[in-house]
Amino acid sequence: MPRKQWESAFEQRREDILHDWETFLRFASIGTDPAHKAECEACARWLRDRLDHSGFESRVVATAGNPFVHALRPGNPDKPAILIYGHYDVQPVDPLEDWTTPPFEPTWRKDRLYARGAQDNKGQIFYTICAIESLIAAQKLDRTVIFIIEGEEEFGSDSLNQALDAWSDQIQAEALLVHDTGTVSSGAPTLIMGLRGILQFECTLQGATHDLHSGIHGGLAPNAAQAAAAICASLHDATGRVAIPGFYDGVIPPSDRERTLAAASPLSPETYRAETGTTPDGGQRDLPPYERVGFLPTLEINGLHSGYGGPGSKTIIPAQALIKLSARIVHGQDPATLIETVTQYLKEQAPPGISMQITQAHIGGPGLRFDPEAPLLADVQQALAAVKPDQPIVHRWEGASIPIVARLAEVSGATPLLTGFGHEDDRIHAPNESFSLDQFRNGFLYTALLLAQR
Amino acid sequence: MPRKQWESAFEQRREDILHDWETFLRFASIGTDPAHKAECEACARWLRDRLDHSGFESRVVATAGNPFVHALRPGNPDKPAILIYGHYDVQPVDPLEDWTTPPFEPTWRKDRLYARGAQDNKGQIFYTICAIESLIAAQKLDRTVIFIIEGEEEFGSDSLNQALDAWSDQIQAEALLVHDTGTVSSGAPTLIMGLRGILQFECTLQGATHDLHSGIHGGLAPNAAQAAAAICASLHDATGRVAIPGFYDGVIPPSDRERTLAAASPLSPETYRAETGTTPDGGQRDLPPYERVGFLPTLEINGLHSGYGGPGSKTIIPAQALIKLSARIVHGQDPATLIETVTQYLKEQAPPGISMQITQAHIGGPGLRFDPEAPLLADVQQALAAVKPDQPIVHRWEGASIPIVARLAEVSGATPLLTGFGHEDDRIHAPNESFSLDQFRNGFLYTALLLAQR
Repeated sequence: MPRKQWESAFEQRREDILHDWETFLRFASIGTDPAHKAECEACARWLRDRLDHSGFESRVVATAGNPFVHALRPGNPDKPAILIYGHYDVQPVDPLEDWTTPPFEPTWRKDRLYARGAQDNKGQIFYTICAIESLIAAQKLDRTVIFIIEGEEEFGSDSLNQALDAWSDQIQAEALLVHDTGTVSSGAPTLIMGLRGILQFECTLQGATHDLHSGIHGGLAPNAAQAAAAICASLHDATGRVAIPGFYDGVIPPSDRERTLAAASPLSPETYRAETGTTPDGGQRDLPPYERVGFLPTLEINGLHSGYGGPGSKTIIPAQALIKLSARIVHGQDPATLIETVTQYLKEQAPPGISMQITQAHIGGPGLRFDPEAPLLADVQQALAAVKPDQPIVHRWEGASIPIVARLAEVSGATPLLTGFGHEDDRIHAPNESFSLDQFRNGFLYTALLLAQR
Repeated sequence: MPRKQWESAFEQRREDILHDWETFLRFASIGTDPAHKAECEACARWLRDRLDHSGFESRVVATAGNPFVHALRPGNPDKPAILIYGHYDVQPVDPLEDWTTPPFEPTWRKDRLYARGAQDNKGQIFYTICAIESLIAAQKLDRTVIFIIEGEEEFGSDSLNQALDAWSDQIQAEALLVHDTGTVSSGAPTLIMGLRGILQFECTLQGATHDLHSGIHGGLAPNAAQAAAAICASLHDATGRVAIPGFYDGVIPPSDRERTLAAASPLSPETYRAETGTTPDGGQRDLPPYERVGFLPTLEINGLHSGYGGPGSKTIIPAQALIKLSARIVHGQDPATLIETVTQYLKEQAPPGISMQITQAHIGGPGLRFDPEAPLLADVQQALAAVKPDQPIVHRWEGASIPIVARLAEVSGATPLLTGFGHEDDRIHAPNESFSLDQFRNGFLYTALLLAQR
């Protein structure tokens, strides 16, 4: 079926689709907040019923945390299955006063629907569901399709992570569709070619048992703020490269083909300044931005706190310091080895008179990198080209992490296919999140066009 | 009059002295808190009336802040006057719940009087007043004596500082008595031979306009925490010496005599660890502790804050950082030059993509160093020896600052004579501040013995 017919299919169901999308958005499914657990459970049940009604064998799977939905529609047993991942949990809504209309009362303004989760990820998973329903109605889907829609993506996916091995048999697939990303700022269709993994660290430093008078003890007492600064400053060399020995072990440089694809959408310093207020001068300034974000690991200080921070002054030698770090790691690097490399390094940095404790060292997940020559990617590109024939497809090696994707890929044996129709304007995670009808429809068309081929 | 007679003088008045000391302590004269301004004013009036009654021409001098008390008792015009400085303002009392008895309800437990200000400085200035009264009663005081007792010592002495030039004529003196310090931990009588001055700095760093996602921007965006850490780490070299060029300009090394006196009370690392929980490994570890504290300047990080500091993690690239610094400077160094040296250095350290603003650069005051051979010091030593004949006198080049002392010395032309009977156990600035009857009486005896000679 060509694009035009999927457009008609959408138009015919449009009223219903938008109505049900709004219903989905009314669940205040803030996953991280225990006070919203009942809303999360109700939202999961609503999804189960929806998919049940669409022809799936669907159930809500209880976990120690929020439940996830597993739904399966058996197809031709000779063809490999399609696994689709999404999440129904949404970010908290603070500051509530900044919302023009309440976050869980979906409201149209011009062509945009405003609500928490309008895009991330309820909007994107819902156009995917609607497209699958239209494929079924058009008898264009003979593959087995499996949905896994969880309720903890915004805070680590712990419950799904733990449950996944037990569900291994029920999620074997050829492709793993994840529609949880966006397009580049021009709006050109964007195919995610890689994700970084993540490691998180926290350490505390302790000098004296209490803050000391900076006059009486100045020149005598070790200063925890100074120690923390020295440790943090030692993490990078003057070129912006991480200075911990072994930190780059396992990094695989981009191939010529990857370089060409990645360099095709260059970063303009002017655009970057307009969006962030600063210049792209972090990391290794001598390397092209796409390589720094997409193909190299980072070690960022997320928080550094020591001593007095209130108004005026307090002449103390701080006794304690707190350092929070996170590393984004790339495909080829072993998270377990790297977490050891970093913690060992940190432990060796405490100066005389200061003790160090590593209070957290957590593996979020490994990096992922997809083969640009994989046949499945060609299908994705074809579908994207059909949705937006006038715009070149952008190949993006993403700097962010969706740790559950690597796990799902590993357990299911599926090749992840990550794309999405989000945009900076959607303001996900912020007040007044929204998703336009146009973006939603493009997502619907893309999903239908991709799977109708198969 | 020998010591015994001053002891009897104290015993005869003991009931009255202790009663009036308690009255003095009942004023909740927390100078820094505007809500306590009326208490400060009432306390100043009480002091004026007290000194008036004791034979002084006394008045409360209004300022833009808290008033100070000026009191003068004319003596033999051919003999130089004695100026005595003290303060009636006290530190805040938080955390209130940690006080065994309310801070402004003086309470005796064993031989200690517990109250905010019991020592600092109400206890010490009050024994001084009482000793002067006994000297007058015994007709042993023919010098002009001038009191300046202010209400802003705990937060910078701004009002007195501003008023001082106008009062220059009324405070000309030979000696400036300041009883606002303590003894070494052994309790041996301690003569302060120097004070450090103080400079204070605050600067803020700004990268992006808002915290950025550490995945999407990691490798691109400059990190304000990393910049702050690098700046703070650059302030000292590996030996603990301040690395800012010119920072040690004007420092005068201790003379042989000063070294001998200072080294006579060595710092034991064990005692230091017992008192602070850490080792004396700050500053220039290759130099003796007395030299690091008494004869060298320091630059301490008082506060360093950037990014997330709450529970769990937040994977951001911090957009802002706050650095609070203070320098203790020594006699011979010019505060105005040094403040310029440090601010210029800081301004040059902002890396690409990060802007810096110096939000505070404040001169507290210069350092002071007293001549060990000054004849007045010999009198002090004699008086101290008479109070504690069994203990050697400790000469201490103090690391802390009392900025108003340098100003008072400059305007009055007087030689500062700093001693005091405070002790670590008194817990000044902390809950359950106290001062023992023994310490109070020693202060009384010392003051009487010192001035009776003259």
